[in-house]
This record gives sequence, C-alpha cells and structure tokens, in this order.
Amino acid sequence: MRILGVDPGSRILGYGMVEVCGRECRYIECGVLTGGRDPSMESRLAEIARGLHEVIAELAPGAIALEDTFSHLNPRSALVLAQSRGVVLAVAGMSGITVHSYAPAVVKKTVTGRGRATKEQMARMVQALVGLRRPPSADAADALAVALTHARRGGHW
Amino acid sequence: MRILGVDPGSRILGYGMVEVCGRECRYIECGVLTGGRDPSMESRLAEIARGLHEVIAELAPGAIALEDTFSHLNPRSALVLAQSRGVVLAVAGMSGITVHSYAPAVVKKTVTGRGRATKEQMARMVQALVGLRRPPSADAADALAVALTHARRGGHW
Repeated sequence: MRILGVDPGSRILGYGMVEVCGRECRYIECGVLTGGRDPSMESRLAEIARGLHEVIAELAPGAIALEDTFSHLNPRSALVLAQSRGVVLAVAGMSGITVHSYAPAVVKKTVTGRGRATKEQMARMVQALVGLRRPPSADAADALAVALTHARRGGHW
Repeated sequence: MRILGVDPGSRILGYGMVEVCGRECRYIECGVLTGGRDPSMESRLAEIARGLHEVIAELAPGAIALEDTFSHLNPRSALVLAQSRGVVLAVAGMSGITVHSYAPAVVKKTVTGRGRATKEQMARMVQALVGLRRPPSADAADALAVALTHARRGGHW
C-alpha cells in the first residue's frame, strides 16, 4: 500500500510517499513542486496540476492523504489554499485515486503525540519516523506527516 | 473577442459565452456541467475539470471571467467553492487563457445597475441583455453575467 501525502499550495506544494508492508512503514520519496514564476494564479495552479499528475503517474499511489483546509488561517489565505486543494482533488480524481482528509490536529497528534507542535518539531519527528538522515523541507515534511497519519489511522501500519 | 464566464461549483458549474464584435455583444452559448453522482469530491471535481476542458476546446475563449470567491457565504461553503474555483483556474491556465475576477457586487451592478439583485432579477436582465427567449438557469445566468461584466468593464463592449 503506497500512500501519497500532499501539502497543497499555489507557490509550493509538498508531497511525500510512504509504503506500508506488513508492520513496516517505508519511506519512498518526498519533494516539492513549485508553481513557477508566472504571477498569475491560473498559470501557477496549472503548473502544480501538471507536476502532481507526473508524480502520481511515476509513484502510483494507492491512496492520497491531505490535511483539511486550515480553518485557523485568515479567510483570504484559507481560500487561496482551498483553490490549490481543489486542484489536488481533481488531479487525484482523474487518476481514480481516493483522497482521505485529516484535521491538522489529528496529523500533529499522530506524528508527535500532541495536538500542537511547531513546524520544526514536526519535521524532526517525521525525519525520525521515516529514517531520513536530514529533516525534509517543511512542505515535504507536512506531506509525509499526513501520509504517515493515513498509514496509522487507516490501520495500515 | 470571445469571453467565457464561469460560475464555479463542485456539483453544478455554470458557463456562458459571449462574443464582442465592435459595439455588439453577441450571445454564443450557455449551459451547466455537473460533477456527476459520485459522492466523492475528487470524482466530482475531476468530472468538472474534464467537462470544462472540453468546453474550452470547443468554444475557444480568448478570456475567462469569474466572480471572486464569495466572502458572504459561510466559511465551509466558501472553502468548497474555492476548491472548484481552483480547478477552473488550473484548467484555464493549462490552456494558456487569462482569468479575470470580478467582485459579486460589481457583476450585479454592471448587469442590473444595482449592487444588490435577486437571482431572478439577474437571470431576467441577462436574458434581456443577450436576447434569449427564456431566462437561462441560475448557474448559466451567473456565468453569462460575469462574461458580460468582463465585456463591459474591459471596454470591449
């Protein structure tokens, strides 16, 4: 079972994949996609959609995991993030992949044992859980965190 | 200059095209796309993306016009709408079409002469402006209204 975690964004989208084999949860890959330098939102989201489509084609996830759109952001930021989230959902849907959503607090609690954690704490815990030599970038760490959450909560790991 | 107005939604997306020739603004087509019966958001948004891609390929708009995401909706509805809006932006961006956004009050004022108007008043004004025999459905009317707004505000008509 390969799980692709995605951290949506119109400028930078983080992704991270883990594979669950029996009781093991193995790190496969993580990285970021950028929306390019074009200032227009439509160009950036198109670039993100293309990139994510390629990642899905290459890594062949069985499921995609996302955080619920952040309700604690200011409304404007939440709407911009939701636009990027919609693109992720549509690209997943086009590949027939089911998307699972988790509240940010659930992701933090699953990964760090607490409902509140700083970005740095999250990145270090993710690094330890998947056995990376260096902490991943914040966006990739958030994506791996939600992938790990789906692995754990879905009873896959 | 062909302008495609879009009224985003994950269950129903309205679209409407007008063509500006000199001082004339001619009605081309309007309709709705449905997200299908699949209960999952990813399937519905994928269906909307496919449908919109076909509409764009067929009607070849020079510009796309959208309303700004409604800030007067409750936050949950606004986020769901923003997801669909993101899909519209990405599909437009993939076709290299620039998207123009207008505040709902600007659209209403342009079409009806007032910042506030009911759905029925909007549909009747749109019907009169583009010379349709019957009022279009609410979603298609909203899409035509924002297309007309871009035609008017952009000085094309």
